[in-house]
Amino acid sequence: MEHIKNIVLIGAGNVATHLGYALEKGGFQIVQVYSRTKAAAQKLADDLYTDFTTDLHSIRKDGDLYIISVRDSAVKNIAEQLQIAPNPVVHTSGSLDLEILKQTSDRRGVFYPLQTFSKSRNTQFKTIPICLEANSEELLAELENMAGKISDHVQRINTERRRILHLAAVFACNFPNFMYTIAEEIVEQGDFNFDILRPLIKETTEKIMINLPIESQTGPAIRNDQNIMNKHLEMLQAYPAYQKLYEMISREIHENSKKGSE
Amino acid sequence: MEHIKNIVLIGAGNVATHLGYALEKGGFQIVQVYSRTKAAAQKLADDLYTDFTTDLHSIRKDGDLYIISVRDSAVKNIAEQLQIAPNPVVHTSGSLDLEILKQTSDRRGVFYPLQTFSKSRNTQFKTIPICLEANSEELLAELENMAGKISDHVQRINTERRRILHLAAVFACNFPNFMYTIAEEIVEQGDFNFDILRPLIKETTEKIMINLPIESQTGPAIRNDQNIMNKHLEMLQAYPAYQKLYEMISREIHENSKKGSE
Repeated sequence: MEHIKNIVLIGAGNVATHLGYALEKGGFQIVQVYSRTKAAAQKLADDLYTDFTTDLHSIRKDGDLYIISVRDSAVKNIAEQLQIAPNPVVHTSGSLDLEILKQTSDRRGVFYPLQTFSKSRNTQFKTIPICLEANSEELLAELENMAGKISDHVQRINTERRRILHLAAVFACNFPNFMYTIAEEIVEQGDFNFDILRPLIKETTEKIMINLPIESQTGPAIRNDQNIMNKHLEMLQAYPAYQKLYEMISREIHENSKKGSE
Repeated sequence: MEHIKNIVLIGAGNVATHLGYALEKGGFQIVQVYSRTKAAAQKLADDLYTDFTTDLHSIRKDGDLYIISVRDSAVKNIAEQLQIAPNPVVHTSGSLDLEILKQTSDRRGVFYPLQTFSKSRNTQFKTIPICLEANSEELLAELENMAGKISDHVQRINTERRRILHLAAVFACNFPNFMYTIAEEIVEQGDFNFDILRPLIKETTEKIMINLPIESQTGPAIRNDQNIMNKHLEMLQAYPAYQKLYEMISREIHENSKKGSE
């Protein structure tokens, strides 16, 4: 197998966009971008100085690698229509298994960057763990070579372990972000700007860059300060769902601290 | 009233410790440390080159200010025993009102730094919002002057608004930290080290240093991807409490996104 050089990017969302930039910077060529949304395809293709298509059947056949980077729920449909065999294809999903690409090519893999991507932010790929899987040692080695050009944290990880990471990522990224959203709603009640919470959020995160979160827990729940927790629940009366969350999470923090000290 | 110079620190926990360091650095003198735990009192007093006592009745009477920085549940008892009137006294709690210090002195206030403190970390006080309250304009001005020496974010904030901040801090700090704790438990199931999640956590936080959390939400819940969420719930079968949390938080993320787009 030739070294991968020319890549076709299928998708123009957050992951596809950042991956496209990183691969270009790493010395690869994105030779075509596909998205069913013309504006998205065109925008990303322009940014990468390449061509685009909105028609799955107009995807060029000579790519060294096809990267499907679309919503999980759209992968199957695209994989079934894509005619690029015998060339290799990968998806970038944390949850889907390898075999979803069975009909696309006999050479298939997974290229999952464990990160949250927003279009508005430049992402440093070097520190991002990239989880690789493939149905042949040859392709796996190729993907490793490629991933190593954009990240220092490339790992071979099977579907089961990748799914564990993806589930953990929900708790490590999506759920904390929603806690921040609730915190913002609360400070608004006091006519505060979200700014007032930013130093606290920053420090909370910086602490666990060094320590484990279980060692960093503070607040009324870990102290089991019923007085304060009852006051807080009272203050949340207008938000029954947040009240319930407050109760459940506090109970779990307390339960968890008992486990630790048993 | 003379400018505050000599301060008696009542408490030797995380907040007292960091506040003590910051005040010394800001040009104030901690003239005595009290803690009922001898080791804690001695350690902090040594670090601040000052004296300590473990006896509330041996607290010196000539402090310009007394800072009560102990667990919320211990403040009332200490405030009742402390004989330092007519000198001014403050507490550092996010939740307690001013009048809890009624029996201690006619000059009373609140000095609440909105931050999470750990003994093991150096904290930059300059960026920390300090929320001040006092029962006289004179004392408030003195506290403002003092707080301004250690932080650039000093604000006058009444009890009600301070409580709102404290509740928000639980969602902005304590609860995200517990989400990280769960994430760690999950990655352990796949034999991963917590390290693998740190770049994701860092990026999640850096995003909301610039954007609002409501604009930064990613993941299966905001996309309402039932397939993945069901898979995740299945994977959490051995952890019924986390399963319940996953369900509730995901539902709220989805509900909240509908609110936004209405």
